[in-house]
Amino acid sequence: MSALVLGGIEGGSTHSAIILYNGNGEKLVHCKGPGTNHWALGMEECQRRIHAMVLEAKKEAKLPEDKPLTVLGLSLSGCESEEQNNELRDGIMKKYPDAALEVVVTSDTVGSIAAISDAGGMVIISGTGSNALLINPDGTNHRSGGWGHALGDEGSGWWVSHRAIKICIDEQDNYKKPPFATDTMWRTIKEHFDIKESLELLSHCYSDFQKPKFAALCTKIYENAQMGDRMSQWILAEAGKALAKYVLALLPRVHPNLMLIPEGIPIVCVGSVWNSWDYLKEGFLEELNAVKATPRLRLLRPTATLATGATYLGAKAIKYDLPRDYSSNYKTLYKYNPKPLCSGSLIIKENGFADKNGLPQNNHAVKA
Amino acid sequence: MSALVLGGIEGGSTHSAIILYNGNGEKLVHCKGPGTNHWALGMEECQRRIHAMVLEAKKEAKLPEDKPLTVLGLSLSGCESEEQNNELRDGIMKKYPDAALEVVVTSDTVGSIAAISDAGGMVIISGTGSNALLINPDGTNHRSGGWGHALGDEGSGWWVSHRAIKICIDEQDNYKKPPFATDTMWRTIKEHFDIKESLELLSHCYSDFQKPKFAALCTKIYENAQMGDRMSQWILAEAGKALAKYVLALLPRVHPNLMLIPEGIPIVCVGSVWNSWDYLKEGFLEELNAVKATPRLRLLRPTATLATGATYLGAKAIKYDLPRDYSSNYKTLYKYNPKPLCSGSLIIKENGFADKNGLPQNNHAVKA
Repeated sequence: MSALVLGGIEGGSTHSAIILYNGNGEKLVHCKGPGTNHWALGMEECQRRIHAMVLEAKKEAKLPEDKPLTVLGLSLSGCESEEQNNELRDGIMKKYPDAALEVVVTSDTVGSIAAISDAGGMVIISGTGSNALLINPDGTNHRSGGWGHALGDEGSGWWVSHRAIKICIDEQDNYKKPPFATDTMWRTIKEHFDIKESLELLSHCYSDFQKPKFAALCTKIYENAQMGDRMSQWILAEAGKALAKYVLALLPRVHPNLMLIPEGIPIVCVGSVWNSWDYLKEGFLEELNAVKATPRLRLLRPTATLATGATYLGAKAIKYDLPRDYSSNYKTLYKYNPKPLCSGSLIIKENGFADKNGLPQNNHAVKA
Repeated sequence: MSALVLGGIEGGSTHSAIILYNGNGEKLVHCKGPGTNHWALGMEECQRRIHAMVLEAKKEAKLPEDKPLTVLGLSLSGCESEEQNNELRDGIMKKYPDAALEVVVTSDTVGSIAAISDAGGMVIISGTGSNALLINPDGTNHRSGGWGHALGDEGSGWWVSHRAIKICIDEQDNYKKPPFATDTMWRTIKEHFDIKESLELLSHCYSDFQKPKFAALCTKIYENAQMGDRMSQWILAEAGKALAKYVLALLPRVHPNLMLIPEGIPIVCVGSVWNSWDYLKEGFLEELNAVKATPRLRLLRPTATLATGATYLGAKAIKYDLPRDYSSNYKTLYKYNPKPLCSGSLIIKENGFADKNGLPQNNHAVKA
């Protein structure tokens, strides 16, 4: 069993990471790599980079380069379409037979849940953009959001920054009154974009629009919120509402077995906007509390690399029960308990396998 | 006096028009021309095209080509900055001394008001995008909106189309419930973009985004509203609210003399979205009625070319009192009378020069 080597790759637009485990679930190496989004790179280059990362990881782990991994799981951004995913997989297996005996391709959202639970759950991503996915224990999945900034991205870094700018210019135009004083926020916007007046924002919104630069303003709004700026706190609470709506959007699709989890449905919170949870919280809870029969929920922040989830998915595909301890892969951000009046309706407590943090797991061997 | 020839050009991004009047205010010619937006063309080409249009108009009017016009007024889209406007003017006068003895450059918004009143007023543009301008009798002006679709364009064709799409995909995502059934609207969206499913919208929003194509959906939403579709009617009422907010944004900046006009402050309604006034109206009035002390207003639709306004501005610049009949340049779309409770507060009736439709005018000779 120890001859087995399982690998997983977490892939983003700007950087990626690979992790290798032996058959006992012991981590062998964890190396960084370049971006692997095939929409940005083209299929060929994406495949080439993945192979290069596998080679480097084997070298680092002092494994023979020509011996294929038992399985390679890929959880990459941009891998939303089954057709494209198959093309990516088949290309790697054909061109680089020394990479792995089996290759499994999923999106990064799927990988984030896999690192935390194999019983499924939700993932709410809020970084530069936003997106939400539910994976049920029976493998069915449902999505909400993911339309990008032209049609969505609610509660994301881009969205918070956009709201902040819009509130300031609407005030300057006398078009809409802001809920709080905007002095601090407007000063921060000018500093962030290095501009002197509002018209200079236009180039940052059109000819020179860079979404990450735009969204990075959100971090400064969070800092202002921490310094007591009411306007910044208000916008982050609004973002909290927008993110809670993703949860509410997916709840009707949740499989009854996910409802059985005593500690609540696991919700994996991915992306840097979740760092400002202290200020998202107010709006998030307000939105959930406004709906009757919201079940128990558990917000979890991943602490392990997504590459771990990708490895678990690879193991699952070859039906190999890789030893693991899920509880070391996340920390709990918040436990949502429904308001007493409606708490009895949907929560059915039941005995079941649970890790030490209360998440149900299949009977995997736990890493010693 | 009849030796005088005054010209005006209305300039847009895709087409322009020139008009020539003699000193008695009689129209000599009205010719079409190509786009003259200097941001799109560059200054040189814009100047060249304007000169070519002047030459063609003179030829058409059987005027000597080498004799400069007495004055040429330009009301062009994209001419919002005084510095750029001066550069445009100086270039024409220097390179093409046979064009006109004097050249005056203003934005198209300024030209739209000039065609209807020389006492000033508001112009609310709602076409592909939206924008609002107040010109006071003392020449001061104030703006609201004009940020384009990334930051504004409220109540525009783009905005209506975007709202329609967003309402449909938010419903499909279970993210937000629509106020009415969306069947008709979604079918119309699919037909307009020639798509089968919502994901195909992405290219129309990003890689292949064409704002005019996007905004053109608005016309179909208007048609649906006419056929009784409640969802379409609702969105247009929301657009009405958004446009009324421009009026409310500018009201505090209105010069007291504009308030004295017995028939109400003239508001020039430019752009094709105003064609759906029957459905904008409900939201527009709701917004105005929600504010105390909204004064009497008069919504006017221009019937004359903006080039006429441009000519009037040229005449004004050389202090020549060109005979004109403003009332033939517009039709009344709506007369807004404040609710009885607050009507007495701001409306001060006073005798004054007024055209036959009640707009005050300076004592111009009226064309026989």
